[in-house]
Amino acid sequence: MKGTIGVFDSGLGGLTVVRHLRRLLPGADIVYFGDTARLPYGSKSPETVIRFSRENCEFLLSHNVAMIIVACNTSSAIALDTLRREYKIQIHGVVAPGARRAADLTRNRMIGVIGTHATIRSRAYDREFAKMGGSIKVVSRACPLFVPLAEEGWLDRPATVEIAREYLLPLKEEGIDVLVLGCTHYPILTQTVRRVLGEGISLVDSGLSCAEAVRDQIGDGERGVEGGRVRYFVTDMPERFKEIGRIFMGEEIAEVSVVHPRAG
Amino acid sequence: MKGTIGVFDSGLGGLTVVRHLRRLLPGADIVYFGDTARLPYGSKSPETVIRFSRENCEFLLSHNVAMIIVACNTSSAIALDTLRREYKIQIHGVVAPGARRAADLTRNRMIGVIGTHATIRSRAYDREFAKMGGSIKVVSRACPLFVPLAEEGWLDRPATVEIAREYLLPLKEEGIDVLVLGCTHYPILTQTVRRVLGEGISLVDSGLSCAEAVRDQIGDGERGVEGGRVRYFVTDMPERFKEIGRIFMGEEIAEVSVVHPRAG
Repeated sequence: MKGTIGVFDSGLGGLTVVRHLRRLLPGADIVYFGDTARLPYGSKSPETVIRFSRENCEFLLSHNVAMIIVACNTSSAIALDTLRREYKIQIHGVVAPGARRAADLTRNRMIGVIGTHATIRSRAYDREFAKMGGSIKVVSRACPLFVPLAEEGWLDRPATVEIAREYLLPLKEEGIDVLVLGCTHYPILTQTVRRVLGEGISLVDSGLSCAEAVRDQIGDGERGVEGGRVRYFVTDMPERFKEIGRIFMGEEIAEVSVVHPRAG
Repeated sequence: MKGTIGVFDSGLGGLTVVRHLRRLLPGADIVYFGDTARLPYGSKSPETVIRFSRENCEFLLSHNVAMIIVACNTSSAIALDTLRREYKIQIHGVVAPGARRAADLTRNRMIGVIGTHATIRSRAYDREFAKMGGSIKVVSRACPLFVPLAEEGWLDRPATVEIAREYLLPLKEEGIDVLVLGCTHYPILTQTVRRVLGEGISLVDSGLSCAEAVRDQIGDGERGVEGGRVRYFVTDMPERFKEIGRIFMGEEIAEVSVVHPRAG
């Protein structure tokens, strides 16, 4: 794989994809763009999500990336088809890889999907499962409070557990044996999700599945090669991005630049 | 009062101000602008809040308003001084009226203030109380999860009560006798706040205080005169604005236009 990989998200969540890319392709150069001034995307309309996603692609293209990863489930669910039509460059999302992984894991063909309001309303996961043949039953649920809880670092407080029970127990009662964490923020709530669901339900991290799909596609020629560099750009709050981003990345984030693409 | 009153907020919360204005000045024409594509403001930086607030003023000025009300505590706390310097027009915020009302109500001079991260960090309420002489003690607390809970309509669920207890009981233990609801979203959580705090602590609705301050200033010549018209503009999600806005307004919202000021 030659050239820089561009990754965008509405904020921090997409760092889970970058974290896995760093491990799987340590030689790859990455430009990360987090639209922290306009987050969250998950409560906004398809038109707005498409408009913001297009602007994010333009920013990454101005950095001469060779490939774009839409590391945000909301953008992937809503804007991916439009972006692929409009740009010649290769564009990967997180929805299809997460759905494929879930289909590989399920035994009883009952799959749960959680995500933002916008992702769940879009039925993008349902469409992916439908492409695989008709026998998978999807039970989906919007979990809009998970993002603010994750952003506040309320990962396992009593209120978080209470909210997780309200969101997730109905999915468990439906009999799912796999749950897709259909928002790149959700993996940091894994411990609470497991506590509520108990054993026996596999969790799919759509960000990990996406990173693996990219590695599979471009080959692992760079695996084991050190020296890849990540540059971080956000539209707001660089200090907070560094601070909370460390939790997502599992490593320090040295430098973050603030940009205002539309003002340029 | 001649001329239209312009009101802006990051989203829906400012409708609490409009609701009171409608009651106090039923003859006044109002233009409301909710920046729903970029909300929330409360988790963003001062620079970004000032930039967004300036753009919102420009939009209202393009509708020839005679006065602007910054119906968002975050914008009021952070951007009001800048906006007043930059625009000749009269501009009202919600922070000073809320603080004055709290100072009138307190008996023991111990006042609690809750708001977004940005409002609390700005210390705008502390500065208002300091202007009134040094004897008021302020105990403040950011309650960032209250906005998403209000937006979800989770007004009195177990998780909401649990979160309210975590946020508010420390303020009660400090001995406050007045609590300023320093975010225009919070009044719809009043029942839960009262349940957690019990009797004996007065609540101040900063939106109501602001509407009363505007009425006092421009006179009530229009009180009792019907026929004032409200026009609503948002940057995203007009249908949701209508639906949830009804709860804030206590009346139907007939028509909402979507605008993209910066793209114009």
